[in-house]
Amino acid sequence: MAHHITSAARSPLKPLDVALAELLAQALPLVGEELVSTFEADGRVLAQDLVAAIDVPAHDNSAMDGYALRSADWLSAGTALRVNQRIAAGSSGQALGAMCAARIFTGAPLPPGADAVVMQEDCTVTAAVGAELPDGPPTLSLQTQPQPGQWIRRRGEDIAAGRVVLQRGQRLSPAELGLAASMGFSALQVARPVRVALFSTGDELVMPGDVAPTDMRPGTIYNSNRFFLRAMLLRLGCTVTDLGIVPDQLSATQAALRSAAQQHDLIVTSGGVSVGEEDHIKPAVQALGSLHLWQIAMKPGKPFAYGTVNQTGQSAGRTHFIGLPGNPVSSFVTFMLLVRPFVLSLQGARSVAPQSLTVRADFTQPTSDRRREFLRVKRNTNGGLDLFNNQSSGVLTSAVWGDGLVDNPAGHAIEAGDMVQYLPFSDLLR
Amino acid sequence: MAHHITSAARSPLKPLDVALAELLAQALPLVGEELVSTFEADGRVLAQDLVAAIDVPAHDNSAMDGYALRSADWLSAGTALRVNQRIAAGSSGQALGAMCAARIFTGAPLPPGADAVVMQEDCTVTAAVGAELPDGPPTLSLQTQPQPGQWIRRRGEDIAAGRVVLQRGQRLSPAELGLAASMGFSALQVARPVRVALFSTGDELVMPGDVAPTDMRPGTIYNSNRFFLRAMLLRLGCTVTDLGIVPDQLSATQAALRSAAQQHDLIVTSGGVSVGEEDHIKPAVQALGSLHLWQIAMKPGKPFAYGTVNQTGQSAGRTHFIGLPGNPVSSFVTFMLLVRPFVLSLQGARSVAPQSLTVRADFTQPTSDRRREFLRVKRNTNGGLDLFNNQSSGVLTSAVWGDGLVDNPAGHAIEAGDMVQYLPFSDLLR
Repeated sequence: MAHHITSAARSPLKPLDVALAELLAQALPLVGEELVSTFEADGRVLAQDLVAAIDVPAHDNSAMDGYALRSADWLSAGTALRVNQRIAAGSSGQALGAMCAARIFTGAPLPPGADAVVMQEDCTVTAAVGAELPDGPPTLSLQTQPQPGQWIRRRGEDIAAGRVVLQRGQRLSPAELGLAASMGFSALQVARPVRVALFSTGDELVMPGDVAPTDMRPGTIYNSNRFFLRAMLLRLGCTVTDLGIVPDQLSATQAALRSAAQQHDLIVTSGGVSVGEEDHIKPAVQALGSLHLWQIAMKPGKPFAYGTVNQTGQSAGRTHFIGLPGNPVSSFVTFMLLVRPFVLSLQGARSVAPQSLTVRADFTQPTSDRRREFLRVKRNTNGGLDLFNNQSSGVLTSAVWGDGLVDNPAGHAIEAGDMVQYLPFSDLLR
Repeated sequence: MAHHITSAARSPLKPLDVALAELLAQALPLVGEELVSTFEADGRVLAQDLVAAIDVPAHDNSAMDGYALRSADWLSAGTALRVNQRIAAGSSGQALGAMCAARIFTGAPLPPGADAVVMQEDCTVTAAVGAELPDGPPTLSLQTQPQPGQWIRRRGEDIAAGRVVLQRGQRLSPAELGLAASMGFSALQVARPVRVALFSTGDELVMPGDVAPTDMRPGTIYNSNRFFLRAMLLRLGCTVTDLGIVPDQLSATQAALRSAAQQHDLIVTSGGVSVGEEDHIKPAVQALGSLHLWQIAMKPGKPFAYGTVNQTGQSAGRTHFIGLPGNPVSSFVTFMLLVRPFVLSLQGARSVAPQSLTVRADFTQPTSDRRREFLRVKRNTNGGLDLFNNQSSGVLTSAVWGDGLVDNPAGHAIEAGDMVQYLPFSDLLR
């Protein structure tokens, strides 16, 4: 029996954009929302539109510490006004009489009649301006004419009542929490966390701590993928069940998948998706659901599997399955570029693809690859990018040294000085 | 009694770099480390050098699924070798005889005698290659001459034993956890979390949830700063005690500071540090320790306070105090540019300043400021930056709309097409 591997392995490569689109088409938002305190909503995806119930600012108010006055009262250099009221933030003032000024502090509502604020640095006050008004009211001298409207924040200038300030599908970060709080929202409706089961396969894998480095048998390596995959999933707000290293046996693999499917929305594995690889992941998923094995035109990261595992019993739904390559850098990069958008989409996030920046390459990459390549690079102090000297995908040193990826088109060489597309890790690891 | 405010308020502005250097000079690393599982170390700062105990890879191994062989055995196109052993990942092989090849999988150790690997896609095997060897060994045909060393990962190629793979002071992210695990580290010595007490001052502040938006009294606003400050501190690995809104009374403020000093490394407040502001923060800190009020040459964010509050009783140390401006955008930006590096330094982090990128401005900013300005911008799909149309510092909409800051020098106008210094929020919020 002759078996020619050659032709089967050379299946056409799938472009990354096509793979991502096909993947996202499967990532329908999960059913289920929850109400969480705005304090606890960092990183979550908003499941409601937040509508402003009030104008912000709610009233015309002072943008500075100073004096509120009527600009028409200015007559000439040295014009003096009577300071006959005092409006601290949190209090409101009385209507302002002619030739009068109000001591006012940043954020305090403008008194009726006032149409300008003069910064305290720009005027001279004769008489102490303290917590108590002295017997005779102090006098304010102006050297220059105040412009109507100066140093005033207008009612609704920042946000008009009725406006949607944050849209459903917005992922929340500290600034969004602050904005929601400023509109009076003490709790927010957000998508529930994605429940992910994570395991690795491969008899060569040893858990750190189980065997000392010097006692490792030849051919065995420490499992590192589960460490960064778990951390990346947690950063996406997932709850992660770590099923450990599953033995390289079909029955054990099927049992792990069956059990994981019951309580989870997504099963992520690393290893066992390469062509010709000795592994039971592929037949196990095929037996319990469906599996698509992709060869993606990207480097690192070619092999990738997407499928579903049927749930049994009352639920009888399907759990998503994603199989990542076992190679650490491939696993790391495919997670960032494919799994991250998938997980965000399951939470109903609107914007899941990172936006690259055009930055100068301070390196030469004369050899191009037939696959779209994601080079590990680091910003230098000249505003450009340096290339890690070892783009081998075997170890994570390139990802530790670097601070991002250059997204280099297939068949494209890079000269020093070229502008290239840069994706910071900080964006991809949020 | 005449009081001329003018001259006092126009004290010279402190450059941001000077303020940061002075601040970091106070941020001596805290005493205290802890051993945490590598699984739980994301975001922490390493308190030990991690030294490789082994070479990575530990042995010469295959970079591909294919066949290991002796390159000298190649005679001509069609050269056939006997496949007489099989080395899966996790197992090790026997010495390779002449005119023999070993079926080998990615990561498996090269058998003694082999000096090259041929990818399975590049050869033809006559006889099934399955889990069991058939009765007669299969035969491998080669059309092209294998180069010595091809598709082999050399022992120690990625990491040589004895090398420091991660340095003390490195902040850990998913890639570092993976690298540490790949070297066999199941637990890591890290700096202990910084204990931060957080409160706001200002009688105008109302907590979201306490008063409905439509019932807000004139001059009152919702407290939003504590929401984003807490979230940013948590992202830096801090434990945060939220002391709420402290009433605008000297005794209450002193009591809050005294109590906070006992159990914390750092007290952060927002509000009460502007010139002329009605607040008891400044006298309270001065009475209980020391205080430096800075006017920093940055926009937004001019007022900033650093000081210490003396601990009482047995500890009798000093707790750091940082007073941020009450204005939300100023508070947000000064946290990212000053407090974040300070908190990382308390953990002994080596690299605390973000590295800006040189990116094209697709906007015009004709008016320059006498202060160094941090403009809220967003990347567009052309690889450039767009400017938010309202750079007022009153509300956080600019920070929500944008994805970063342009660091614009004092007195510098920007023309569309200029290259500018860009700091992504994702870097500043890590």
